[in-house]
Amino acid sequence: MGKNAANAKKLGKKFRKLERKLWNYEYLLKIAEFDGATIAPENGAAARGEAMGFLSAEHHKLLTSEKAQQLVHDLNKAVAKGKISGQLADEVRVFTRDQREALVIPTDEEEAWTRLVCEADAVWHKAKAANDWESFEPYVDRIVETCKRHAGYLDSTKDPYDVMLDQNERGLTSQDFDAFCDQVRATVVPLVHAIVEHGRQPNTSFLAARVPEPLQRQISFDLIELLGIDRADTALASTEHPFSEGFAVGDARIASHIYENNLISNVYSIIHEAGHAMYELGVDPAYAYTCLAGGTSMGIHESQSRFFENTVGRSRAFMGPLLKILRRRVPAIYGSVAEDDLYRAVNIAQPSPIRIEADELTYPLHIMIRYEIERLLFAGEATAHDIPGLWANLTEKYLGIEVPSDAQGCLQDTHWSGGSFGYFPTYALGSAYDAQYVPAMVADGVDVGATCASGDLAPIRSWLEQKIWRWGRSKDAPQLIEEACGAPFNATYYCDYLAKKFGALYAL
Amino acid sequence: MGKNAANAKKLGKKFRKLERKLWNYEYLLKIAEFDGATIAPENGAAARGEAMGFLSAEHHKLLTSEKAQQLVHDLNKAVAKGKISGQLADEVRVFTRDQREALVIPTDEEEAWTRLVCEADAVWHKAKAANDWESFEPYVDRIVETCKRHAGYLDSTKDPYDVMLDQNERGLTSQDFDAFCDQVRATVVPLVHAIVEHGRQPNTSFLAARVPEPLQRQISFDLIELLGIDRADTALASTEHPFSEGFAVGDARIASHIYENNLISNVYSIIHEAGHAMYELGVDPAYAYTCLAGGTSMGIHESQSRFFENTVGRSRAFMGPLLKILRRRVPAIYGSVAEDDLYRAVNIAQPSPIRIEADELTYPLHIMIRYEIERLLFAGEATAHDIPGLWANLTEKYLGIEVPSDAQGCLQDTHWSGGSFGYFPTYALGSAYDAQYVPAMVADGVDVGATCASGDLAPIRSWLEQKIWRWGRSKDAPQLIEEACGAPFNATYYCDYLAKKFGALYAL
Repeated sequence: MGKNAANAKKLGKKFRKLERKLWNYEYLLKIAEFDGATIAPENGAAARGEAMGFLSAEHHKLLTSEKAQQLVHDLNKAVAKGKISGQLADEVRVFTRDQREALVIPTDEEEAWTRLVCEADAVWHKAKAANDWESFEPYVDRIVETCKRHAGYLDSTKDPYDVMLDQNERGLTSQDFDAFCDQVRATVVPLVHAIVEHGRQPNTSFLAARVPEPLQRQISFDLIELLGIDRADTALASTEHPFSEGFAVGDARIASHIYENNLISNVYSIIHEAGHAMYELGVDPAYAYTCLAGGTSMGIHESQSRFFENTVGRSRAFMGPLLKILRRRVPAIYGSVAEDDLYRAVNIAQPSPIRIEADELTYPLHIMIRYEIERLLFAGEATAHDIPGLWANLTEKYLGIEVPSDAQGCLQDTHWSGGSFGYFPTYALGSAYDAQYVPAMVADGVDVGATCASGDLAPIRSWLEQKIWRWGRSKDAPQLIEEACGAPFNATYYCDYLAKKFGALYAL
Repeated sequence: MGKNAANAKKLGKKFRKLERKLWNYEYLLKIAEFDGATIAPENGAAARGEAMGFLSAEHHKLLTSEKAQQLVHDLNKAVAKGKISGQLADEVRVFTRDQREALVIPTDEEEAWTRLVCEADAVWHKAKAANDWESFEPYVDRIVETCKRHAGYLDSTKDPYDVMLDQNERGLTSQDFDAFCDQVRATVVPLVHAIVEHGRQPNTSFLAARVPEPLQRQISFDLIELLGIDRADTALASTEHPFSEGFAVGDARIASHIYENNLISNVYSIIHEAGHAMYELGVDPAYAYTCLAGGTSMGIHESQSRFFENTVGRSRAFMGPLLKILRRRVPAIYGSVAEDDLYRAVNIAQPSPIRIEADELTYPLHIMIRYEIERLLFAGEATAHDIPGLWANLTEKYLGIEVPSDAQGCLQDTHWSGGSFGYFPTYALGSAYDAQYVPAMVADGVDVGATCASGDLAPIRSWLEQKIWRWGRSKDAPQLIEEACGAPFNATYYCDYLAKKFGALYAL
């Protein structure tokens, strides 16, 4: 081994050690966050904020230390000289960007940010339960203000909201998303109007039958098994707002909220979150403890969760396997429900106040409400105080309904309390990516319908694992999409899918 | 302010900052451990071991760094000169001992230890479920070997097992505990024999009635409320082996294992663990984020848990409030059970294989089985391979029964997997402390019986809070006992209590 190669090897070893340390901090932060969102008692929030603030500062210090900067400099030189290649070079590339983006934010601001969102999350939980927007309001203003400052640090030449979008989905701008919304609206709004005016709505009464929590938990485990997750790789927790988190190779978990009079809400939460979990579990194990571990972006993540929730979970073909579970566990209700009845019921297109329970057709309109409010906040044209009013106006405008309460309105989602601005658009994008995956799967020989009907999703999982999951953070969203689908992202697939599906459902 | 005083203030500030950092690491380690014992999936164990090993090493490095040593040196000088006093001086004293004990163990050994017990715990969970002692056996040998080595670092002039005892209960030696066992055996063994030979056993059939898990969870919350814990300060988790953990001011949690055909097992697990939780929650909030936070020793901790479990929970007087809950939640079974029936049933003295379900009388014999095995392991007179045989012999000798399986024998407890050797004796001591608390409470004007009967335990809680809880780690066990009871520990109270209670129960 020459001197250069030996040096590169030594550098690589040092780098992996640094990555592993940072990974450990990230793991522990996620565990504490998960604990806070699932089981931690209310009065423990301050201590958790203290510990998480401290740990995020340690993480930030380590990532941005002069030693780490020198190491990244040396690594990039070795990559340029061809001394480092393959996976390690990918790690260097991704790590370099992570470090560059961390460097612009001072450690004390990073720590204060972690404390702020930790506190805000605890306040939001109470505010939602008490339908009390006012108590949460100041946090929204502080979070937006902090996001804007951080966005300025990252790129002062850009609109701060565009920086936020780019953080959630590389390359995404509000101009792109505006165009996307225009295109989707042109398809969705006439369809919704047509359905409201002359669509025959299906019977959904059986969906409201009371199913006790323990039984719903059993159904959750049945669904996890049906989707193909190894029980030893996952856990099921209870929480206010459903979420999923990937912790490590062999550990990605699902948290959902069970309503005894709304089984189907839990069913689709579980399927959605299981999609996220499968993505995390499917990342190449060779990326463990490196900066390539985990999902690459929010949009790609949502494209996985919403693929299982909608493309699979709300397809006509999947009604067989799904109904089999429901009939076994709740025979008194589902014994007399036919597959077609279930298909119509879980696809009822009807404006409703809750995003995560919305049908596929009205879903993007919920995203547009949040997107427009976020843009106003970031443009300084509105403050948190205006949000309930804006929410009411936009809900009336897009969905044509009244907001029943702030708890079922602007307090319904957990995202803002966690500092996730610029996140919501990725849900709509995720669905749109899904519509483009399907023809690519078919071209690769996957019979999507037959797979859903069979109850063995292995061919679908395998395609996603090869095209998306395994790559972890080694590829950005645009590259993944282009390689998986053979063409850049195009929203037309999504609009066509919605028009075809809901046109047929409502005989329009 | 003079120069000395200003210096002392600066020192104190630096010290508190260090304490807070260490506290943060400890909090996160406890969160990860709790996560591992309650919800984490099986396949996440390796990653948790990695992260916890790393964090415990960071903690150890910080606690033992040259800077921290210099700081402790300077702080002790300031205390000696009277420049630092009060709570801060207590912190310096306790911290100095923590640091001295940490310094003898190299950081890499500390990290390896954390990884070992983290891995061992995951293996034990599987081994217990599979009744597979062999898979766990090598871990026991490795843990004992590591404990012995660490004990040698701490004090090479002492018997390593005495060092372990001292780590769990300051000042305790095997000579003391042998004498304690002799005294207790002299009371207990003849009583057990007399009961087996001519005691009339009560009807306990109602205890085995099936009570579904959700109902048992409701009862758990009722009990927590009855004991006086604020729901916002606690959480209830499911686990293999019941435990409790204090995390912070306003956050101490209880984990139990529900068996649907053994309600009473969960009832007394909850009451026991709630005793631990109340202790942690009752520590002076001024100790938050300092080394004085938390309970002072295992013996004192067990004296709190077992006080509520037995002195309160299995008293005749407490049957009123307890039965009220059981009647409300399970009327079909407990509607027809009288207080006297319940009292006799929950106090049945009968040799049985499971320690945590043993009655008060045979309980210390379970401890002696474990104590004798631990002493043999530490003396090098036995290895893990011998444990199942030793367990069978000692169970025959002390309890006169056969061991049904390793799962219900030497695999039943979680302690060894967590590295807790020298811990079991503190359970028996805890009960013995309890017997001495009662006359002290009475002398201080607490009517223990009337308090238990009333269902409002405030007077008992208040006594314990003043005498024990609030002091956190600022006083060692012997001092606490002496100040609370007006005399040093004396096992005669315990023997008299057992003789009187079980003599009356069985009309001996």
